[in-house]
Amino acid sequence: MACINLSIDKDGLLGALEELAQINRQPDGSCCRIALTDADRWGRDLLVKWMRELDLEIGVDQIGNIFGTYCGQGNAKPIMVGSHIDTVSTGGKFDGPYGVIAGLEVIRALKRHGMVPPHPLVIASFTNEEGVRFQPDMMGSLVHSGGLDLSTALRSEDREGVMLGDELERIGYAGKLRCGSLVPQAYVELHIEQGPILDREGVPLGAVENLQGISWQEITIHGQANHAGTTPMSARRDAAHTAMKIVGFARQLALRMGGQQLATVGSIHLEPGLINVVPRKAVVTVDLRNPEEHQLKEAEGHLIDYLQVLALEEGVSIERKQLARTLPVTFDPEIVRTIETSARELGQPIRRMTSGAGHDAQMMARICPAAMIFVPSVKGVSHNPAEHTEPEHLVLGANVLLETVLALSYGESAP
Amino acid sequence: MACINLSIDKDGLLGALEELAQINRQPDGSCCRIALTDADRWGRDLLVKWMRELDLEIGVDQIGNIFGTYCGQGNAKPIMVGSHIDTVSTGGKFDGPYGVIAGLEVIRALKRHGMVPPHPLVIASFTNEEGVRFQPDMMGSLVHSGGLDLSTALRSEDREGVMLGDELERIGYAGKLRCGSLVPQAYVELHIEQGPILDREGVPLGAVENLQGISWQEITIHGQANHAGTTPMSARRDAAHTAMKIVGFARQLALRMGGQQLATVGSIHLEPGLINVVPRKAVVTVDLRNPEEHQLKEAEGHLIDYLQVLALEEGVSIERKQLARTLPVTFDPEIVRTIETSARELGQPIRRMTSGAGHDAQMMARICPAAMIFVPSVKGVSHNPAEHTEPEHLVLGANVLLETVLALSYGESAP
Repeated sequence: MACINLSIDKDGLLGALEELAQINRQPDGSCCRIALTDADRWGRDLLVKWMRELDLEIGVDQIGNIFGTYCGQGNAKPIMVGSHIDTVSTGGKFDGPYGVIAGLEVIRALKRHGMVPPHPLVIASFTNEEGVRFQPDMMGSLVHSGGLDLSTALRSEDREGVMLGDELERIGYAGKLRCGSLVPQAYVELHIEQGPILDREGVPLGAVENLQGISWQEITIHGQANHAGTTPMSARRDAAHTAMKIVGFARQLALRMGGQQLATVGSIHLEPGLINVVPRKAVVTVDLRNPEEHQLKEAEGHLIDYLQVLALEEGVSIERKQLARTLPVTFDPEIVRTIETSARELGQPIRRMTSGAGHDAQMMARICPAAMIFVPSVKGVSHNPAEHTEPEHLVLGANVLLETVLALSYGESAP
Repeated sequence: MACINLSIDKDGLLGALEELAQINRQPDGSCCRIALTDADRWGRDLLVKWMRELDLEIGVDQIGNIFGTYCGQGNAKPIMVGSHIDTVSTGGKFDGPYGVIAGLEVIRALKRHGMVPPHPLVIASFTNEEGVRFQPDMMGSLVHSGGLDLSTALRSEDREGVMLGDELERIGYAGKLRCGSLVPQAYVELHIEQGPILDREGVPLGAVENLQGISWQEITIHGQANHAGTTPMSARRDAAHTAMKIVGFARQLALRMGGQQLATVGSIHLEPGLINVVPRKAVVTVDLRNPEEHQLKEAEGHLIDYLQVLALEEGVSIERKQLARTLPVTFDPEIVRTIETSARELGQPIRRMTSGAGHDAQMMARICPAAMIFVPSVKGVSHNPAEHTEPEHLVLGANVLLETVLALSYGESAP
């Protein structure tokens, strides 16, 4: 398809990934740029600087999504590529930034050859994909795609009661662009797999055809605080013991349902949380995922039923709050095929797959044809400073993105 | 025995308890005067003011224990009564302050009648009984009784790495008195039961004849952080799931051993502690108690064995650190009998009992004859703002303390 030697500059791609990773790097090597913190601002500032250097038209919308546009030949609808640059508190270098920076490198490659494709090319960096401090996650793309009201998102509060809107103003990224005004012709997100499949199978590329539904619950247990040395075991209403049973139930539920059902308890907060006090309160999160909506519903139902039984068993009261819920997503088959074709043009094997993680692409799929490209994560490790993808895979993925963007922009008859 | 109408002033006792409770009172009613914080200083300042008003000779030792002495007739060894005024973060009004303030009221009652007993009477308020921020707990009395080196205690660090000695200087209670220089003839501690026995049986007084041994462990689990949506259940090395199994094991261990074995997990910290990340690390505390040393050792042994099996089962590494360990204590039978006699002199029923909680009295028992007096805790609730003891029981306990002090000071032939 590409008859000129059009390809990604390896050093440019890897250098930019490394430069962004240095911002608020932790002693253990973690990247910590939690959305709406100062570190997020520093990352955004660097991204905007890079966009300026490429002469992109920069827009920031009211939820802080950043768009850099490389103008096309005419008034065609844009092709959008992107991801996010926020991280979890112990993040790696690639989860998010890879898709954004690869987009910039695609534009740099086009400019190097003086190429202006028919469709404008927009690089999107969405606000708060990780949902660490403010929920729900994937917030920027969710608001962009009309799935969440802007004002609700801006009023979202962190644990200390700080509002997202105030933090967005504070870090200088409360933009003027109306949310959702940019509706592209197609959206393609390049991302590391964050799972073990490609690495295990030795396949360097994945064409993501669908994505799991995600259900996040926050479960609050009210027991009774008591002295650890004077309260007989039988007289306890122990919030920690109740929390423990939820952790065990979640694991058993996933194993019992089998298939692609996943269940994770990632956070447990006990009050008062002292060695010698039976905890009066526990707050536990449960993350349920399944690519089949009816199975995800089934898992949620089992959990809800169990909490009722558990409250009686343990003599506590239990509240459940749904923090986030996304439907499983099927990506656009045409774009998935285009991605496969692009990989084959480069002579590389590619496999179809399901995304286990949530991504901005699932929100974009609400308003336009969308799909994703995956590259391997060594040992499937992610949300961890040990997150790693081989440099040649990073470059390969970006070249597939470049090919895919060209194919989408020029149509079947490539230049 | 007491032929004059010598008794505790109810309003004085209850008023002082209430006044101290107001310091750093929390919105939910909790008393929060964690040792070595500003709130602890404010409590100490109030106590010292009260001691000055009673013209006591005040001494502060190098670990911050406060002693107020009411001089006796001669050079006899002192009788000491006391407890502590620090609290857990969600404490009640009586756990600790009751024994100190009742001591002051005993002196007030003596002074009201111009009575100067043969032995000096010392009111002791020991540093950091609760062990919330700095471990081990019962630190002041432990250092006083020679069970812990002063310099080790001063170097104890909180979670932020702040040293106890620096905090003691900061709050102005790093005294000059050499630790352990005050060895009394006898030590009596008046305390709320913090358990349900007296309340359930409707007995207003307990003569505490022994005390459980306590074993505190901190267990650190190193698993692997991973993305909650991409890591198959079978491939997880989940620190939260491992922590959960420890909570379940602790409960089962106590139930299986039966008798007076207790086991509590009061604190669980997960890292990174995010909804969508399989936790890489968990820190769990286990509090084991038993009045029989061989059974306590057996419980510790079972736990250690289990941790080895668990590490293999879960594919994680596990470290165990002993944070504190006290032997079961048998109190002085003579003082226990004196307490019983004092209660009967007042025409009140009293029962012998075991203390489920740790108390400064167990440390004092290392260097002098010691025992304790308990009054009921309504429903056994303690370490909780709902901690309550009926006012008439508070006054009764203080009167038994007064009688006991007189009996110990005057010997069998009371005035």
